[in-house]
Amino acid sequence: MAEADRQENGSGHRSLAGRFLATRSLSLDLIARLSDADATIQSMEDASPAKWHLAHTTWFFETFLLRDGLRDYRLFDAEWPFLFNSYYEAEGERIARCSRGLLSRPSLDEVLAYRAHVDAAMEPLLGDPAHAGLVALGIAHEQQHQELLLADIKHALFQNPLGPAMWPAHTTAPAPAPDGGWDEYPGGMAMIGHAGTEFAFDNEGPRHRVLLEPFGLARSLVTNCEWEAFIADGGYCEPRHWLSDGWAWVCREGISAPLYWREDRQFTHSGWRERDPHAPATHISYYEADAFAAWAGARLPTEFEWEALAQGGDPREGNQLDRAAPPMPAGGGGYFGDCWQWTRSTYLPFPRFRAARGAVGEYNGKFMSGQFALRGASCATVRGHSRASYRNFFYPHQRWQFTGLRLAKDL
Amino acid sequence: MAEADRQENGSGHRSLAGRFLATRSLSLDLIARLSDADATIQSMEDASPAKWHLAHTTWFFETFLLRDGLRDYRLFDAEWPFLFNSYYEAEGERIARCSRGLLSRPSLDEVLAYRAHVDAAMEPLLGDPAHAGLVALGIAHEQQHQELLLADIKHALFQNPLGPAMWPAHTTAPAPAPDGGWDEYPGGMAMIGHAGTEFAFDNEGPRHRVLLEPFGLARSLVTNCEWEAFIADGGYCEPRHWLSDGWAWVCREGISAPLYWREDRQFTHSGWRERDPHAPATHISYYEADAFAAWAGARLPTEFEWEALAQGGDPREGNQLDRAAPPMPAGGGGYFGDCWQWTRSTYLPFPRFRAARGAVGEYNGKFMSGQFALRGASCATVRGHSRASYRNFFYPHQRWQFTGLRLAKDL
Amino acid sequence: MAEADRQENGSGHRSLAGRFLATRSLSLDLIARLSDADATIQSMEDASPAKWHLAHTTWFFETFLLRDGLRDYRLFDAEWPFLFNSYYEAEGERIARCSRGLLSRPSLDEVLAYRAHVDAAMEPLLGDPAHAGLVALGIAHEQQHQELLLADIKHALFQNPLGPAMWPAHTTAPAPAPDGGWDEYPGGMAMIGHAGTEFAFDNEGPRHRVLLEPFGLARSLVTNCEWEAFIADGGYCEPRHWLSDGWAWVCREGISAPLYWREDRQFTHSGWRERDPHAPATHISYYEADAFAAWAGARLPTEFEWEALAQGGDPREGNQLDRAAPPMPAGGGGYFGDCWQWTRSTYLPFPRFRAARGAVGEYNGKFMSGQFALRGASCATVRGHSRASYRNFFYPHQRWQFTGLRLAKDL
Amino acid sequence: MAEADRQENGSGHRSLAGRFLATRSLSLDLIARLSDADATIQSMEDASPAKWHLAHTTWFFETFLLRDGLRDYRLFDAEWPFLFNSYYEAEGERIARCSRGLLSRPSLDEVLAYRAHVDAAMEPLLGDPAHAGLVALGIAHEQQHQELLLADIKHALFQNPLGPAMWPAHTTAPAPAPDGGWDEYPGGMAMIGHAGTEFAFDNEGPRHRVLLEPFGLARSLVTNCEWEAFIADGGYCEPRHWLSDGWAWVCREGISAPLYWREDRQFTHSGWRERDPHAPATHISYYEADAFAAWAGARLPTEFEWEALAQGGDPREGNQLDRAAPPMPAGGGGYFGDCWQWTRSTYLPFPRFRAARGAVGEYNGKFMSGQFALRGASCATVRGHSRASYRNFFYPHQRWQFTGLRLAKDL
Repeated sequence: MAEADRQENGSGHRSLAGRFLATRSLSLDLIARLSDADATIQSMEDASPAKWHLAHTTWFFETFLLRDGLRDYRLFDAEWPFLFNSYYEAEGERIARCSRGLLSRPSLDEVLAYRAHVDAAMEPLLGDPAHAGLVALGIAHEQQHQELLLADIKHALFQNPLGPAMWPAHTTAPAPAPDGGWDEYPGGMAMIGHAGTEFAFDNEGPRHRVLLEPFGLARSLVTNCEWEAFIADGGYCEPRHWLSDGWAWVCREGISAPLYWREDRQFTHSGWRERDPHAPATHISYYEADAFAAWAGARLPTEFEWEALAQGGDPREGNQLDRAAPPMPAGGGGYFGDCWQWTRSTYLPFPRFRAARGAVGEYNGKFMSGQFALRGASCATVRGHSRASYRNFFYPHQRWQFTGLRLAKDL
Repeated sequence: MAEADRQENGSGHRSLAGRFLATRSLSLDLIARLSDADATIQSMEDASPAKWHLAHTTWFFETFLLRDGLRDYRLFDAEWPFLFNSYYEAEGERIARCSRGLLSRPSLDEVLAYRAHVDAAMEPLLGDPAHAGLVALGIAHEQQHQELLLADIKHALFQNPLGPAMWPAHTTAPAPAPDGGWDEYPGGMAMIGHAGTEFAFDNEGPRHRVLLEPFGLARSLVTNCEWEAFIADGGYCEPRHWLSDGWAWVCREGISAPLYWREDRQFTHSGWRERDPHAPATHISYYEADAFAAWAGARLPTEFEWEALAQGGDPREGNQLDRAAPPMPAGGGGYFGDCWQWTRSTYLPFPRFRAARGAVGEYNGKFMSGQFALRGASCATVRGHSRASYRNFFYPHQRWQFTGLRLAKDL
Repeated sequence: MAEADRQENGSGHRSLAGRFLATRSLSLDLIARLSDADATIQSMEDASPAKWHLAHTTWFFETFLLRDGLRDYRLFDAEWPFLFNSYYEAEGERIARCSRGLLSRPSLDEVLAYRAHVDAAMEPLLGDPAHAGLVALGIAHEQQHQELLLADIKHALFQNPLGPAMWPAHTTAPAPAPDGGWDEYPGGMAMIGHAGTEFAFDNEGPRHRVLLEPFGLARSLVTNCEWEAFIADGGYCEPRHWLSDGWAWVCREGISAPLYWREDRQFTHSGWRERDPHAPATHISYYEADAFAAWAGARLPTEFEWEALAQGGDPREGNQLDRAAPPMPAGGGGYFGDCWQWTRSTYLPFPRFRAARGAVGEYNGKFMSGQFALRGASCATVRGHSRASYRNFFYPHQRWQFTGLRLAKDL
Repeated sequence: MAEADRQENGSGHRSLAGRFLATRSLSLDLIARLSDADATIQSMEDASPAKWHLAHTTWFFETFLLRDGLRDYRLFDAEWPFLFNSYYEAEGERIARCSRGLLSRPSLDEVLAYRAHVDAAMEPLLGDPAHAGLVALGIAHEQQHQELLLADIKHALFQNPLGPAMWPAHTTAPAPAPDGGWDEYPGGMAMIGHAGTEFAFDNEGPRHRVLLEPFGLARSLVTNCEWEAFIADGGYCEPRHWLSDGWAWVCREGISAPLYWREDRQFTHSGWRERDPHAPATHISYYEADAFAAWAGARLPTEFEWEALAQGGDPREGNQLDRAAPPMPAGGGGYFGDCWQWTRSTYLPFPRFRAARGAVGEYNGKFMSGQFALRGASCATVRGHSRASYRNFFYPHQRWQFTGLRLAKDL
């Protein structure tokens, strides 16, 4: 990664307006190789069309900044909020999630015009401190959708028997063999949650004390060849490694490998490619991560354990997204990058957590049941987006994101 | 309809090659206003993307004519038959029907290139009498898909809350009040099934005798305002009008009007428009047709009754498809045109029916369970495609085609 | 079969009152070996608990005879009609069909008390000619439920891994090798439908003329060993034998043999037993029957063909139910007995058919979509219940009744 | 509760053999009023037939004590483990959970004979210290199934439109108005998890330190009239109170009140009865509990907060099950009794938790995903079964157990 890139997307070194423009621009770069049709299809209810991501992130700025904050602003199209509201009940009715993939209209070009319109209208607000919080939220929101967009389009292209590539393959050095060592933590009181004045999501606080027992965390993520050993040892056939819900999922869905694996290859944004043995294993569910850890005689860390050790790392290092290029786990270390890491903690409110008032209060709090916390960052996370206190979350069966695992053990 | 048009698409007045070219050309006209994205989406398993129809009809010619009949022909793309085979088990595995809408690739342009390639390769075969039967089948097949394409894209656009129009609305004269009279048949032996040497599907024969009791058929199709009277009289709320399966369907799906009706409007290829009171009611299921007939103190005809009377009509008259323009039932008469007409006959083989050998034998025979026969032609049927012996068929709950009803009574 | 038995249940030789009592009594004999729990369970939505059959047939007499025909009659229990109405919309709301198996109360003893109460109350009506039609309908109705009860309890006991027997096995002679011959019909006009003054269901009429082409019907039903040859020849693996809906059913449900077959055994009312090679194959769906016929180079008969030939047989002969004993196909001939025979005719109204007025009019007519007609009688049909014009009907995937097939061919 | 009763079922004051016999005997008392049919039916996959509970608890002793611990023991029936194994993968295949309600055989009497046989065979093991741990586990296991049996049969009888009562109603004093006060905890380090040598489940340990912030817990459970106020205020119609998954559940299932509520009545083991305004609200899901707390401006406690305060209470006090009689929340206080209390903690392993080896290790650990912890005890919990460290767990939508809530707040 060039220093220039790092400054492009980082959160700390640029003005809010600059970060707004960089973020809006990256979205356009990400979809530059997609056709209108590519940007329209939706492969499952969990995923959304690329075009929808482009429009929804724009709707966010239009709704919470322009409509609510700019006198005399008129909506680009009064019917579009019905299409591009995601889940904000306070913002009214909206199209069923599973129908997002039927919106051939508006076209990609019309959505791009919508983006340009909103970007222009945003200009007077970008320097106004009264709006800085919501703008920062909107930027972080769009960065999340950039990662979702990459995961969703990968899933959509994977459905196509032709195995189309979104980007050409570019040669990469093989991942180095993983460091087999453990980072250790002696136990005691840890401060968990976001500190400081920079932007963070509401779910990262309040900062609070947590008591930890002594533990170790693997320095490296579990790799493809380690996962192959799990398969070869009958890992997917032996119920004793699995949580009960996980085993039911394996049997019901006929799961026998990570998503996107087929023989020695895996599907990527560059089509079908050979797997790199030492690259981190990815596209695994919580159930798989937990079963692997059980098979390996280890366990998953709690999100508190993870954060306590990760506070010593640099969240801007590691294999993260710097530009529009195929994201691929590459190995080589650090707590941030390559894959999100499943923790054994469910995604629940921290003590004294309160969601914000109004529609924005629906951002995080209402999802606090049934999901597990993931920590770190992935190769599809915009560099600068994540941090030690950052809490990602998915349901335990989901695995279309770049998800992997780092083992933990008691000391 | 100008005489010129009638000659364009008709089956009787032109060479096979001319009809091939006219049919291939009409398909292109039909999708001229669709974007790549419009042509890619699939709104339900019963429907297919427009692009898929374009490619599948081409696959038919490529497979059964070029591959099987032309020495040294090489497939345009060896992977495409997996995508564009519909249901021919003898032709091997194929993509799941419900996944056709995920094929953003090949693009619409690539599919059009495929069409051009196949059309060019077909040239030497078009004049060869050895291939005339299959070419005629391929033309009729593509005409069927032209009607399906129109129905499918209408259903897809209907899902879009914006209610997009495929064509601009063009003003049409209101339908005339229907002729309230009945055509009568005195009973006796009728000859049913295709006669003559022109092309017909295998399911239209063998021609055979059927004994009919005296009956009458309404001269006009049931109209929108008659249907509104059925609704106003509680037709959808009163189980005694309904078949048991139909009533279960009404309750399960919450049916209270024909598909595409909303208040006084209906969705059309030109978007949402006022309903024309005297135009034939359309987009109704067999269950609805049967319930309406019971409510009206009449019944549906058998397909044999229908054919016995329709043999006196001209299948090239009536409101059928002549060019790429929004199909709309307009009323005004005849047995052919406006809407397909549900009969109370299930789609079963005629006596001594035998399906053809090989893959083409899967065309019709294997669908002879669970479906009802519809007769006539609709405003979306290419003129010249249908005839008195023509048997269309759908499941009793299906109603996304232009389907209506003509009442019958015992004499 | 002893002559005495034949007189017991026959429809022609006894008074209506005698037949009422014999029918009511047979129901009790059939369930004599069932526990309260056996009589309560329901193994699928298509089936009903034995207790429910006992109560529903009683509800029929109570509702349409006692309540409607007997001054001052008071319902045995005012809440029970909600439980024991089957599908009569005109009789009001009722328990969901799939919940019939949750009725541990009323107990079997209470239901038997209900039967005794209604039987006693019926006495004054049995000799009254004004009620004779409804009494005869009620008797025929209960006979139908006797066969359903036998099929339903067999299906329920089959679910039990212990394979419990309802009756002890009794040794039977092996079925004789089938007669390989064909009965031939020269074609021409046939009179179809019920004639005469004895009881028949409304769906058996009106009697009408049907034109038939020359055909032959196999003298014997298809046997177990013939079915085994179909399996051995890959019959369940080869889509070309199958209707499209049938092949989808085979794939979706993983069908590879008739219901109740496991290796060389089959499940019976006497538990798991060896299959008799020459006994008629049974518990097959329409899809299987059609595929077998296609494989065998033959076809299924229409119901009109079947009736035209069966009119020459004696519907009171053959392997039918005479007493409470395990029904088992035994082979040996005739058009009646052993198994119901699938025809390729769908169950539709005969010309000029009109359902009766009122709730009883729901008996047959509203089921005239989606089902196929079966003809003959089975080993579980009470002798005297069926006749040449009798029309049984089921959906093409259903096979928990004693269903088999007789091949037909064109001449 | 008489002192005698308390000694009957308590865990502390009697010999292991005495507690074994008392537990086995209580199961018989609980089903004394059930018919064979009552004991056979299963109303949903989550529930099991009463007969199955009786047999499964017996299978537990037969398998893990008699088969594994008693030389020359022969199984009562070699086919029954297939029927009565619940979820122990290490014990092999078993009947599908949803098919337990189809087992009319073995009969209730046969199951009772099984119980007697196993009880007799257990005698020599009851005094042997080598088996004491497994015997204690088997007793606790059967106590859990006693509560499940009560919940399951209530759910089954509720399906019956007749609303049958399992026990006659007995008059009870109205619940007193709730104490509106809060118990407060100053924050700091708490010791969580089972201490001491008495029996506890593996999931209650290891005992470990947890840091708590200052909080308060309501002294009383939320009552019926408080819940009615929530309903009257539109609680079930206002998405902002609800978790996202909870709101989806409300909409999908049409939820508008606790399970078993209908107008002013609720279904109980004594049939339909008026609701007692000050009795604790019960049969609510986690989603409902969480929404109520949000509406009330409070929150649910964590399981650690609950345990920290409950350690000061007496787990043998409160409204719990002492004998075979209709369980009913009655109000009046304490942390134990009336209803299990939802916590906002998901059911996860405590630090350094390790499941036991072998089949018994499947008891708890494999369920540690997707479920929430409930604490306390209910009116259907055998007195002596629960304790401050006891962890019950259910999925957030489940509510057929006696589940309620106690509000918490930050201090």
